[in-house]
Amino acid sequence: MSQEISVAEEQAVKAYGWAARDSTQVLSPFHFTRRHEIVSEATKVGCNVTKFKVGDMAGVGCMVGSCRSCDNCTQDSENYCPKMVWMYNNPNKDGPRTFGGYSNKLVVEHFAVQIPENLSLQGTAPMLCARITVYGPMRYFGLIEPGAKVTVISTSPNKKKEAMEQLGVDEFLISHDPEQLKAAMDTMDGIIDTVSVPHPLLSLIQLLNTNGKLILLGAPVQPPELPVFPLKLGRKLIAGSATGGMKETQEMIDFAAKHNITADVEVIPMDYVNTALERVAKADVKYRFVIDVANTLNSPY
Amino acid sequence: MSQEISVAEEQAVKAYGWAARDSTQVLSPFHFTRRHEIVSEATKVGCNVTKFKVGDMAGVGCMVGSCRSCDNCTQDSENYCPKMVWMYNNPNKDGPRTFGGYSNKLVVEHFAVQIPENLSLQGTAPMLCARITVYGPMRYFGLIEPGAKVTVISTSPNKKKEAMEQLGVDEFLISHDPEQLKAAMDTMDGIIDTVSVPHPLLSLIQLLNTNGKLILLGAPVQPPELPVFPLKLGRKLIAGSATGGMKETQEMIDFAAKHNITADVEVIPMDYVNTALERVAKADVKYRFVIDVANTLNSPY
Repeated sequence: MSQEISVAEEQAVKAYGWAARDSTQVLSPFHFTRRHEIVSEATKVGCNVTKFKVGDMAGVGCMVGSCRSCDNCTQDSENYCPKMVWMYNNPNKDGPRTFGGYSNKLVVEHFAVQIPENLSLQGTAPMLCARITVYGPMRYFGLIEPGAKVTVISTSPNKKKEAMEQLGVDEFLISHDPEQLKAAMDTMDGIIDTVSVPHPLLSLIQLLNTNGKLILLGAPVQPPELPVFPLKLGRKLIAGSATGGMKETQEMIDFAAKHNITADVEVIPMDYVNTALERVAKADVKYRFVIDVANTLNSPY
Repeated sequence: MSQEISVAEEQAVKAYGWAARDSTQVLSPFHFTRRHEIVSEATKVGCNVTKFKVGDMAGVGCMVGSCRSCDNCTQDSENYCPKMVWMYNNPNKDGPRTFGGYSNKLVVEHFAVQIPENLSLQGTAPMLCARITVYGPMRYFGLIEPGAKVTVISTSPNKKKEAMEQLGVDEFLISHDPEQLKAAMDTMDGIIDTVSVPHPLLSLIQLLNTNGKLILLGAPVQPPELPVFPLKLGRKLIAGSATGGMKETQEMIDFAAKHNITADVEVIPMDYVNTALERVAKADVKYRFVIDVANTLNSPY
């Protein structure tokens, strides 16, 4: 079961990795071991590898291992396996901990996805955590429907033009505008809430119609208040969700390839990393930095 | 659409009604207008009535009206219609407010259910609010499965014997015993939480397995804390639910009739009501009081 793609001897010609917050959810200090969402070209494959051949594009997201035999694993939910091994900074049976994109052995085949040729590597990298984390619960909770009306709920009025004209959403709702919230009450089948800072849930619950679903993807340090009665009044639900299983991650990538969808990114060289982090803290990036990590595997950092 | 069963001229020979908390959720003072969950025999039917004939048993639960045309109503969720009329103490188009089991006009036909002959009237009364409120979400959230293991979670060890031996549950878990809770972690597909007093949700969430569902039926005055991260770790959900639609209420009654299930009740005469309320406050009732309200329609109270 454990076929490894060794990249120890040969560095990837093309390799992109995206770095996120550290384990304390604080942006600094930045450690390269935090790198995850990695895409590259297979330059060598082991004899037991069946999913990739030399020249194929491969991607690795949040996890590099799981027990492969529990109920979660056998039902394609490796992401909820109690023995799941995170891509970075996680105790690992083969070493002191996982090193993300700085590893010299990357991953067992099962935890790598195939990236179709028509997707750009750099635009695909952020899909392997950020996008599957959104796609997974939308799929599971039945919120993907052709022709569905899509509303962006934002604190930033200045994002409206881009959302409506370039990203093609149907509505744009300012989350702190009581009039707009009131007008949209009882209209939404589901809300994907990606906010990690504390925020009240009542106004979001009120936007939902009967049987509506509020899916929380952020992880606020302080638990919010749960307005029970508004949930009861329309059999509404609040759920949490974390990343995705390998099957749904591949499905998401294939869906993106079919519709030629990639992420808007800004590719930066390794030595720009600290500047990039300062810009992330100021929300000055559209919408992800992707680090070109080619030829950095022997970096002393 | 509005066929009324008039009981103004003739009093029911058999009539049982169950009384709950008043609108402030406090048990006293008791008003007869609070009466709901009413069952009786049809002694007269109007010319437009198609669902009942004289001699049939009929029951009315929490609601006596709704708009009959909104999305909720047309999808058998009259209980979530914004114009739903509660059985008691609710402003009503035909009068100042609804009077529950003390009304002289009872209900339009749509909001009455048929009670099969093999069910006792007195044991059926509490089904029309208490049981449908549990049955509805169990059905909707997929928690009814033949052969499912049933665990009662209780604060009262002294209820264990009865639960295991008479009610036939598989397990009995004391909600404040950390060892028992730990042993049962990650094992439950769903929990129906009927507690209205404030209580922490974390230990219940931890009992759920991946994709587990915690359904809140109580209405605590203070909103509890929502532990977001534990929800995320297994794509778990918390939902609210309130009573049931007419179609599922009839389905529940028919299910009960098929399996000959009624509620354990203690039938009391009207003049025992205040004593009964004192006993309710002391949890001294197994498990519902049912008031024999026959011949009380002209009561001066």
